[in-house]
Amino acid sequence: MPELRKDPVVGRWVVFSPERQIRPERYKCEELLPTRPEEDPFLEGHEKYTPAELYAVRPNGGGANGPGWQLRVVSNRFPALRVEGELEKEAVGFYDRMNGIGAHEVIVETPHPQLVLEKQNLAGAARVFESCRARILDLSKDVRLQYAQVFKNHGAMAGATMPHPHTQLIALPVTPTVLKEKLVAARRYYIEKDRNLFADILQAERKMGDRVVFENDGFTAFCPFASRFPFETCVVPRKQSADFQNSKDGTLVLLAEAVQRVLRAYAVALNRPAYNMILHNAPFRRSRQPDAWTTIDADFRWHVEFLPRLTGIAGFEFGTGFYINPTLPEEAAGVLREAVSRG
Amino acid sequence: MPELRKDPVVGRWVVFSPERQIRPERYKCEELLPTRPEEDPFLEGHEKYTPAELYAVRPNGGGANGPGWQLRVVSNRFPALRVEGELEKEAVGFYDRMNGIGAHEVIVETPHPQLVLEKQNLAGAARVFESCRARILDLSKDVRLQYAQVFKNHGAMAGATMPHPHTQLIALPVTPTVLKEKLVAARRYYIEKDRNLFADILQAERKMGDRVVFENDGFTAFCPFASRFPFETCVVPRKQSADFQNSKDGTLVLLAEAVQRVLRAYAVALNRPAYNMILHNAPFRRSRQPDAWTTIDADFRWHVEFLPRLTGIAGFEFGTGFYINPTLPEEAAGVLREAVSRG
Repeated sequence: MPELRKDPVVGRWVVFSPERQIRPERYKCEELLPTRPEEDPFLEGHEKYTPAELYAVRPNGGGANGPGWQLRVVSNRFPALRVEGELEKEAVGFYDRMNGIGAHEVIVETPHPQLVLEKQNLAGAARVFESCRARILDLSKDVRLQYAQVFKNHGAMAGATMPHPHTQLIALPVTPTVLKEKLVAARRYYIEKDRNLFADILQAERKMGDRVVFENDGFTAFCPFASRFPFETCVVPRKQSADFQNSKDGTLVLLAEAVQRVLRAYAVALNRPAYNMILHNAPFRRSRQPDAWTTIDADFRWHVEFLPRLTGIAGFEFGTGFYINPTLPEEAAGVLREAVSRG
Repeated sequence: MPELRKDPVVGRWVVFSPERQIRPERYKCEELLPTRPEEDPFLEGHEKYTPAELYAVRPNGGGANGPGWQLRVVSNRFPALRVEGELEKEAVGFYDRMNGIGAHEVIVETPHPQLVLEKQNLAGAARVFESCRARILDLSKDVRLQYAQVFKNHGAMAGATMPHPHTQLIALPVTPTVLKEKLVAARRYYIEKDRNLFADILQAERKMGDRVVFENDGFTAFCPFASRFPFETCVVPRKQSADFQNSKDGTLVLLAEAVQRVLRAYAVALNRPAYNMILHNAPFRRSRQPDAWTTIDADFRWHVEFLPRLTGIAGFEFGTGFYINPTLPEEAAGVLREAVSRG
């Protein structure tokens, strides 16, 4: 029997229809062809093919924009938004527009074109999150910007065009709709119950246990009750924190461990699927911000979402904002737990 | 220079970055392979391979579930929701769920496996919308249901699995998020300005003209100011009406003409792209409904959306709810107008 479940944060319903289930091994995982070395701008020695670097890790020294790096952050060569200029907002007759001020950066995770995030050693994976922290801290000083969206598109089905392991960051002059919805829901919950919504979700999940995939001292990874996608997984810190960029080194190592376990479980159980990784973080807050956001520290918690792209998004999803998911999260979590123990 | 534009209905921002543009002829349009006749349940003579028909057009007579039809509506063999049973809503600890009561129907538009909607004669295309009207009117009598979502997935990239031309309908026991957002925005606009939001959008578009693709006596087709996708097109009736199912025959013929012009322009200009067609309609309203919806007749207007699936949806879109679109709608509309005049 199909079942409808409501997301406790954004109120979105998901239709679970197990009869539309296809077996994990039948999911089509189209791999991106490896880039030919001469066409890969992210290789060591190819630094001249990217815009100037904004951040890099060079433990053995060496100059900027040359070899010897473990990780590099550069501007996107074809940026969706640009950092130059004044922010101009205007009405165009009936409509509203602004110019595309922002930033679009690429975090090249490694010089090795096949060293995907889950195959790095723990320090290498933590380095990716440390670089996100550094870039968010830097961008948050720019008063034109409201938010930095960190995300990773892995595989063709997830929107990647380059197979060389990389994460992206887009900084925006407006607060995203998805974030506003989460902030409003978290605020409302806190006012009503004097409790943090994310803490309550974690408590419910840990008590029931059947949707938990992995835990360490800092994080719980679980398949959400109203998952939109088969094997969707959420990684939430157990200690309250609204701002990812305030995380200490030790926290990022624990995050890296949880992320690697989830991704290794995907690789084992789902045959290396395409996926999106998304960091949901608080917007930049400055003294001149509207005080609507002042309680964020108590009611919103940053978290990381993994969306395997095994099923498509079609007319029903666009029409309703709801999703059809053939796989119950309890079942997905069971498969992933088993894969975590093997992988 | 990139530009941000705000959707006047739902408030979503779209990033237009023409530098990320790819030429229309480079869009990858993966065609679904034709189904082998012996495996196509929607062929004439194959009626026994589908669930019993709910509606059919047989101008020359003939019994239900046999040959002689021009169009047939049947239940989906693998329904996302089921019509049998009582609607049961319950809390599961911290969470909310209900059982999957609803309907999932397939409108087989023609017995001919290659006669896509834009290639039908005008009467054939109008028949598709007449069948939607009939099915919505029937389903609206079921007090367990709140809404009927009509949509079409054409092509693999748009989520279709069967190439035989068909449209789908999913009836839901809850009002979709997307619809609620549109209703709330339309209501707020009406209260503030004493004018209909959709009428004002149409007026603005017709006055500027550069985003208009096609017009006839009943409908205007245009590329929205804050289009999420390249060549996104919206078809809006010029006469106020909240409920698609109250449309008269003549109106549906005019709708069919506008829809066919848009789809022929897509076929010519974009090399038969995958696309989703989505009907945005008012929810079912009954005397026992909350009176929050009683002014819908004045402030919401039904409309049809076309989303060509030339670009993917990736981490940025999931993280923010915003979209990155490489093609300005003025440019898209110019290309489509030219194709309408040729096609």
